[in-house]
Amino acid sequence: MLLINATLATMDGSPAYGLVEQGAVAIENGVIAWAGPGQTVPARFDAGEVIDLDGRLVTPALIDCHTHVVHGGNRAREFEMRLEGASYEEVARAGGGIVSTVAATRAATEDELVASALTRVDAMIAEGVSTLEIKSGYGLDTANELKMLRAAKAVAAQRQVRVRTSYLGAHAVPPEYKGRGDAYIDEVCITALEAAHAEGLVDAVDGFCEGIAFTPEQIVRVFERAKELGIPVKLHAEQLSNLGGAKLAAEYGALSADHLEYATADDAAAMAKAGSVAVILPGAFYTLRETAAPPINAFREAGVPMAVATDCNPGSSPMSSLLLSMNMACTLFRMTPEEALAGVTRNAARALALDDTGMIAPGLRADLAIWNVEHPAELAYRIGFNPLFKRIFGGAS
Amino acid sequence: MLLINATLATMDGSPAYGLVEQGAVAIENGVIAWAGPGQTVPARFDAGEVIDLDGRLVTPALIDCHTHVVHGGNRAREFEMRLEGASYEEVARAGGGIVSTVAATRAATEDELVASALTRVDAMIAEGVSTLEIKSGYGLDTANELKMLRAAKAVAAQRQVRVRTSYLGAHAVPPEYKGRGDAYIDEVCITALEAAHAEGLVDAVDGFCEGIAFTPEQIVRVFERAKELGIPVKLHAEQLSNLGGAKLAAEYGALSADHLEYATADDAAAMAKAGSVAVILPGAFYTLRETAAPPINAFREAGVPMAVATDCNPGSSPMSSLLLSMNMACTLFRMTPEEALAGVTRNAARALALDDTGMIAPGLRADLAIWNVEHPAELAYRIGFNPLFKRIFGGAS
Ligand SMILES: [Zn+2]
Ligand SMILES: [Zn+2]
Repeated sequence: MLLINATLATMDGSPAYGLVEQGAVAIENGVIAWAGPGQTVPARFDAGEVIDLDGRLVTPALIDCHTHVVHGGNRAREFEMRLEGASYEEVARAGGGIVSTVAATRAATEDELVASALTRVDAMIAEGVSTLEIKSGYGLDTANELKMLRAAKAVAAQRQVRVRTSYLGAHAVPPEYKGRGDAYIDEVCITALEAAHAEGLVDAVDGFCEGIAFTPEQIVRVFERAKELGIPVKLHAEQLSNLGGAKLAAEYGALSADHLEYATADDAAAMAKAGSVAVILPGAFYTLRETAAPPINAFREAGVPMAVATDCNPGSSPMSSLLLSMNMACTLFRMTPEEALAGVTRNAARALALDDTGMIAPGLRADLAIWNVEHPAELAYRIGFNPLFKRIFGGAS
Repeated sequence: MLLINATLATMDGSPAYGLVEQGAVAIENGVIAWAGPGQTVPARFDAGEVIDLDGRLVTPALIDCHTHVVHGGNRAREFEMRLEGASYEEVARAGGGIVSTVAATRAATEDELVASALTRVDAMIAEGVSTLEIKSGYGLDTANELKMLRAAKAVAAQRQVRVRTSYLGAHAVPPEYKGRGDAYIDEVCITALEAAHAEGLVDAVDGFCEGIAFTPEQIVRVFERAKELGIPVKLHAEQLSNLGGAKLAAEYGALSADHLEYATADDAAAMAKAGSVAVILPGAFYTLRETAAPPINAFREAGVPMAVATDCNPGSSPMSSLLLSMNMACTLFRMTPEEALAGVTRNAARALALDDTGMIAPGLRADLAIWNVEHPAELAYRIGFNPLFKRIFGGAS
């Protein structure tokens, strides 16, 4: 297949966006065989199907590298109670907070989790997403963490989408271990990790290092076991305060540290040295009405690659639109539209340890998004609008 | 047609949302003939088509009461320049700002304006919108203001949607009248209004009362002519500063005053007395990174009805999602989900002087939205997600 008469944002090197006007992309066997100016297409690619894109923009398909799309229930009533003036205690007494999602997730069957996740995943696919990460972390016991991870894998079996799973047993201390976080880590979190890994369900190990979650010391115990098992790590770090999570993640060569509102230039330097991606999650910042923005300039100056993701979850970011995340990254954090697009393509692939996607370049998977826009800046500029014309997944549309 | 097994948010009186569990709606000749608990449906409505909604939520179809969806071009490049650090002057020198939209709108044919507006209107319809307001205000001369209003009317001819037009000649001083706002008002704004009115193109007269636009005295001249012509007025007021626009609008019995970030409790009292709706536009607040929120509590206490709208425009709110506006109204301004839903139904109808829509009640148009959600709070809770199952427009789906 040969796509012609397109503007390409290859995201592969200079100029800005790796832009190619009047470009063409040749696809063979689900892989990008060639991409460049239309006038220089090698003759052998003219033989097959030729699709005239009429000047449309082609980008790498989008990658959402931080989601909790598998979960039970929703927290709309809690959202409403808070806006009606309920205190934190009143919400908790009414069963709100992460505990309510844990209860709903435990109560759901695997099929129910898949069905509800698919409503969100379908919305992502409709916006040109080819690949998403899905975390566990609302089961918080072995059976339910495995159920979540199996549901995540099932999403990829039921849709034309790739899924990378992250084991997030260290997300919250479940009610039955209240006040006994250390015991939870040793008795549940690590044994569930071993069971999930044995079943081939774990692409990465994640944790939440925060005052309301786990200490650096507890995270270290989980990361040590991940290291022994040969699984890469990542971390929810410095979201609400600086506990040293970003540096800890860097010490373990983490794929990414995520959130980072309270990270410092020192943290950025450590992450740059480790090659860890900074995953920027403006949906949670927006929903929580946080005022401290992540240190985007420090990441730029240190050369830390920045990804952007939805953090799609029922509490702090009930958002399923990666395009909207791009706009929020620009509007709220002053990232540029090019950084936002790199954040949902090239750098998101890196955060998931995928080296076969995220750019338009020969040899990579033919995961492409074709847009009814003229310039790539339009993708981050519009708010709540989906200009996708067509998605190509592994060469198939 | 009889819709059964639905949760109804009638938005008509108490309890909250006018909620009816296990409700039913009977539709005859495009009008709501009956609505209430399913067990009490009058027998005569059982005879026709019966549709089981399987517990889904039914609300009035949505109404976007403040949009600029008809316009030429986009301002993505300006958005990008600002994020790349360009100064206001550099953006202006590159042709940015409202002037660029005026130039693009003047350069477009009526058909081109309609085609580009329809991409946005289709996105609105897909979210359950039945009715939208469309303003002129980027033509700024008689021919181009009329072209915009004709394009707005054409939108309603080409889609199953109702359009209310607002003449916004007093939006900005065009380049050819730079520094001569008074002359523009007298020589262009008022004569174009007369021409547009003569052609039946004006449902309301709007203005922008602001330091960067027109003074209260200039707005008065436009409003006086509107009054003579018998056309209701509305006003962009107190968006960036308090110039007395809200009180001025109230004096003229305005349908609404819009934006209102810098309005006061006194303004709220004047609006309440006049029966003017406060139209809340969080998309512009968000995009401009405004920090002063409109005085929601003052509107509540004074009994000012609050509407919520997209302000869909290429500069300060390139947003076409009314559902996202609802979420922003809650998240950014602490409106409740019920207030947000009233803001895009009952109160939006009032802002457009429509008394035949905006609630589920006998005698009103059968403009309904059916959602894949259980509780109406979910509509404002989710971010960038569209749970519409089906829209019914004038009784037809
Ligand atoms: Zn997360
Ligand atoms: Zn406006």
